Amino acid sequence: MSVFDRQEFHARLARVKARMAQAGIDVLIAADPANINYLTGYDGWSFYVHQYAVVRLDADEPLWVGRAMDAPGARMTAYLKPANIIAYPETYVDSDVLHPAQFLVRTLRESGCGSARIGTDFDTFYFTAKDYLEIVRELPNARVVDAKGLVNWVRLIKSPAEVALMRGAAAIVGKAMEAGMAAIEPGVRECDAVAKITSAQFHGTADFWGDYPAALAQVPSGKKSAAPHMTWSGDSYAKDTVAYLELGGCHHRYHAALARTLYMGIPPRELIDMARVVAEGLDTALDAARPGATCHDVEAAWRKVIRRAGHDKPSRIGYSIGLNYPPDWGERTASLREGDQTVLEPNMCFHLILGMWMDDWGYELSETFCVRAQGAPEILTSFPRDLVIKT
Amino acid sequence: MSVFDRQEFHARLARVKARMAQAGIDVLIAADPANINYLTGYDGWSFYVHQYAVVRLDADEPLWVGRAMDAPGARMTAYLKPANIIAYPETYVDSDVLHPAQFLVRTLRESGCGSARIGTDFDTFYFTAKDYLEIVRELPNARVVDAKGLVNWVRLIKSPAEVALMRGAAAIVGKAMEAGMAAIEPGVRECDAVAKITSAQFHGTADFWGDYPAALAQVPSGKKSAAPHMTWSGDSYAKDTVAYLELGGCHHRYHAALARTLYMGIPPRELIDMARVVAEGLDTALDAARPGATCHDVEAAWRKVIRRAGHDKPSRIGYSIGLNYPPDWGERTASLREGDQTVLEPNMCFHLILGMWMDDWGYELSETFCVRAQGAPEILTSFPRDLVIKT
Repeated sequence: MSVFDRQEFHARLARVKARMAQAGIDVLIAADPANINYLTGYDGWSFYVHQYAVVRLDADEPLWVGRAMDAPGARMTAYLKPANIIAYPETYVDSDVLHPAQFLVRTLRESGCGSARIGTDFDTFYFTAKDYLEIVRELPNARVVDAKGLVNWVRLIKSPAEVALMRGAAAIVGKAMEAGMAAIEPGVRECDAVAKITSAQFHGTADFWGDYPAALAQVPSGKKSAAPHMTWSGDSYAKDTVAYLELGGCHHRYHAALARTLYMGIPPRELIDMARVVAEGLDTALDAARPGATCHDVEAAWRKVIRRAGHDKPSRIGYSIGLNYPPDWGERTASLREGDQTVLEPNMCFHLILGMWMDDWGYELSETFCVRAQGAPEILTSFPRDLVIKT
Repeated sequence: MSVFDRQEFHARLARVKARMAQAGIDVLIAADPANINYLTGYDGWSFYVHQYAVVRLDADEPLWVGRAMDAPGARMTAYLKPANIIAYPETYVDSDVLHPAQFLVRTLRESGCGSARIGTDFDTFYFTAKDYLEIVRELPNARVVDAKGLVNWVRLIKSPAEVALMRGAAAIVGKAMEAGMAAIEPGVRECDAVAKITSAQFHGTADFWGDYPAALAQVPSGKKSAAPHMTWSGDSYAKDTVAYLELGGCHHRYHAALARTLYMGIPPRELIDMARVVAEGLDTALDAARPGATCHDVEAAWRKVIRRAGHDKPSRIGYSIGLNYPPDWGERTASLREGDQTVLEPNMCFHLILGMWMDDWGYELSETFCVRAQGAPEILTSFPRDLVIKT
């Protein structure tokens, strides 16, 4: 069973339907596993095959449409009535002839949606070009429109129950950071450090069991720290190099993320200076993240600080975070960047991540925060912000 | 740098180009991270944004087209010359206005491919409906065709260097299974068992460092074992229940997978009978997996054994396995199932997984094998096949 009660799902559905009505959409197809979970409670590592949640404006509950093998899991985890769990046969899996979207379309047609206005996010991974082409071909009388981010924008504002899970995730990622800082030393293989970090992520705490983050640990050092998104290898950490740790904590699929940096040796002047400037920028940006401010404003506050120190960062400094599945804990909605005019509202949660990648080294510092009803945000994550120095 | 030499990449490219020529494709766009890695060596956890590898029939090397932030990582990991690493600006990320496919298309147009016959896999996750629609809209003179599985089918037959990595992955998954069997006991939380399993997966061995498997551990017990694909929670294992462990080992992105089952208590008769029948079916199917046999034949050998015992399994019993990224270590090509007429050839590798899900319990047994030049296959994984009994 889901960790949320039925009222929570009904409230989500109402907000999604309001957006559908506004966009003139009768039937919404969600293919992103986070959106399927958000709408139905379904949770399983089955998103490597096609699966969908279907919201009809005129129905009380969504449908779950997925693989026959996964229907028992849907009955265990989704809040839906059994009749709303609809399974396609195994012959639709990895077939050259049959496609799950054909089955989905038949379900839609049989329930009288053959000429509906159908919305779906055209740019979500897990909704392929083939999904789109099959739906358009098989429903010639329907109108299929791009509902980009429709459910994601609803997810942006968390309920109190969701924020509570994120506090649990934040407690977990703090433990994982501790484990990582203890494990990384010259001579230690990256994979062995990650084993300890991940162990802490999955153990979690006595109160909060550790779920798998949508992205695994990134702990590059030396020249590899000059690039983001490098995963680990069997290389060993070396003396007199920098390493950063970008980690997620997860509880019931809700995330908090945290990044810190360490130096193995006597840190060079430029790294110490960078750490100072970035910490000041973080403070300033966090203080700016008040209800009524825009995402643009938060980034501008940061930019002002680092400009003064002669630095520049072309990429965004954060994004909304919450419920998610691999490959990304970001929600693909609001970004803390120049020009993003999203207005901060209470219970929006962001990962504010300051990644500075130089030619042959990098520095990262981040926090996950939740916008309060007034004043500066609640910082969910908790770990000293200083550059960690191991000599 | 990649673990493979340049000759390996050239050989792959030649095989891909041969299939392109046969299909009348001038330009192939690959969006699946496994295919991008296969073609270029690129490796990074950046597949949550759009990225592509482009193979031109008339070019010596593919292009890597990805996010500006990830270009340094591409220069570190891909074998390509710097001019073939092409980055789109940060403004294309999660934007309502700009889409990475527009940037890709401009690159294609500028290199004279505006009226080419372009192939891409329409049904790969990571190639969205929006990707497709943008390419078709922006290249009105091109012809865009479905190159379903084109690179995947090339991946099906491994090189000796690839099989060597899979042997490493198999050594790792054996260690992980040992750790799991030791950890799972009545009273232990699932998440704490998974922490130990994952720690073993990432430590790997002295010779083979542990990379992250494309799917994490599945270790359900009791009623949850009646469904596949359930990930763990904070629930504790209970006495007198069955649990199965479906685990991956990974080394340099190459996988071996392994499933075993344990019972905490005195196992009921029906479980012991099931274990016996499935073990006999596994032996029979493995023995049938000889070069020249079809995937259909292997499944038929299994089916005959379980039919005799009064069982039925509607889903496939295996799939090709190798290089991959989340969410799936399967290659989406050949499946061991009724009707699949793919002929087994040396160096094809499969995960033969016998998952039997009853109404309120389940049993799994699997091996990862590599087809030999003659005779029965090399079984890469190694762990006793008996039901493990913990009293």
